[in-house]
Amino acid sequence: MVIKPAVLKLGGSVITNKREPMTPNMPEIERLSREIARAKVSQLILIHGGGSYGHPLAEQYALKEGYKEQTQLVGFSKTHQAMVALNKLVVDALIRQNMAAVGLQPSSLVVTSSGRIRSIEEQPLRNMLEMGFLPVFYGDAVLDSDLGFTILSGDQLAAFLAVQLGASKIILGADVDGLYTSDPKSDPSARLIRRATLSDLRNMEHEIEKARVTDVTGGMAGKMLELMPAVGKKISALIVNAATPNNIYKALKGERVIGTTIVKG
Amino acid sequence: MVIKPAVLKLGGSVITNKREPMTPNMPEIERLSREIARAKVSQLILIHGGGSYGHPLAEQYALKEGYKEQTQLVGFSKTHQAMVALNKLVVDALIRQNMAAVGLQPSSLVVTSSGRIRSIEEQPLRNMLEMGFLPVFYGDAVLDSDLGFTILSGDQLAAFLAVQLGASKIILGADVDGLYTSDPKSDPSARLIRRATLSDLRNMEHEIEKARVTDVTGGMAGKMLELMPAVGKKISALIVNAATPNNIYKALKGERVIGTTIVKG
Repeated sequence: MVIKPAVLKLGGSVITNKREPMTPNMPEIERLSREIARAKVSQLILIHGGGSYGHPLAEQYALKEGYKEQTQLVGFSKTHQAMVALNKLVVDALIRQNMAAVGLQPSSLVVTSSGRIRSIEEQPLRNMLEMGFLPVFYGDAVLDSDLGFTILSGDQLAAFLAVQLGASKIILGADVDGLYTSDPKSDPSARLIRRATLSDLRNMEHEIEKARVTDVTGGMAGKMLELMPAVGKKISALIVNAATPNNIYKALKGERVIGTTIVKG
Repeated sequence: MVIKPAVLKLGGSVITNKREPMTPNMPEIERLSREIARAKVSQLILIHGGGSYGHPLAEQYALKEGYKEQTQLVGFSKTHQAMVALNKLVVDALIRQNMAAVGLQPSSLVVTSSGRIRSIEEQPLRNMLEMGFLPVFYGDAVLDSDLGFTILSGDQLAAFLAVQLGASKIILGADVDGLYTSDPKSDPSARLIRRATLSDLRNMEHEIEKARVTDVTGGMAGKMLELMPAVGKKISALIVNAATPNNIYKALKGERVIGTTIVKG
């Protein structure tokens, strides 16, 4: 069987209440599960972020920067457990829509080097897609051959899996409408970019890199950098607002939807 | 660093209430977590069974026999989710004892062939042991290259990991005192075998194989067959009653405890 899945990443800020630690946004999780079920994509890989589950603990124990002291180990354990709890809520909601969803644990599959994935054991994943399962990954605390451990973002995982499996497309479900010319929250003249090529992004790379440094949650700038290798392999990426009902359904069906499309150009 | 972990398997019948579906035995989970913490084993791999979490669903959807029809896929998902829920309870209890426990998902790591593990990606596991984490595996629904999917028992996983990592010993925490000359529940003259060699077991193999066919839950006979390859590599195996307080602590410490020791001989 030819494996050519769509890859859908749902931002943690959409499926959790970011202001309250360890609080899911269950109405949104249920709605998004219904949209995914209704779209009936034959091969789909779902990845979700951490939102108020993973982020506060990961920051508290400074996991991203790697091993410094013994007390971080239990912090790693707690962070991973928080992500398991969120993943369980997402997978259970998908199963309620009669989808054969199976959570897949990044930390059991991946050892990064300086924060970057070098390889993933892909056989279980390929077999799952062939059988008709819906694999559901998540951002996770993972082991790192240089740092001891680190945080692997769902964005990096989405782009890596898309390249490795030759995905048909990547859809990023964010809590904003897409990529703007500047920050729409502070600049009223900010304009949504509907379509960008890789060279457009490269021209913005310095700005993006600057933004990334100051943006600990990844944000849109970090997402762009993560997506570039996949787009370079001619996998188109679409950023849409997952909080807007029917956007994820439309994006999965390939229907017209407000957002930012990034193509190789 | 030399990796030579002890391997501890806790039976699902000890940590769950087998008569009530999806019911944990929390007092036992807490007590066993305290015993494991108190033993301070420097390298330990923990594996637990499914008990009333995994078994009823696995049977309902006939997962062990492999793929027959589409409706089993959601059954696979539900069975795995049940095991995730039980694993979360066990890992949370270990973290409460300040151990850096990390659940590890067999179905993301292993694809079996005709129900048997051929290989396991071991790098994440080795790194975890080196860093001082306590990996916690479980019996799980897994993909199978011949059957589509099947059920991987915690016993098979324990023996396989013990061989692959050159474990110092295997401890099986069961709900009986060890291996008996006959079934102690029906035969009052049944006698506990305190020590058996591999050739003792081979002499009993025909009886054991017969028992296994009629014993869907694995039982002691199936456990013996699973342990034989590890014992053949000179890894001693000890079966103790994990429901008896302090047995697991003593077994981990290498102290004298009632049970069955199996050696190569």
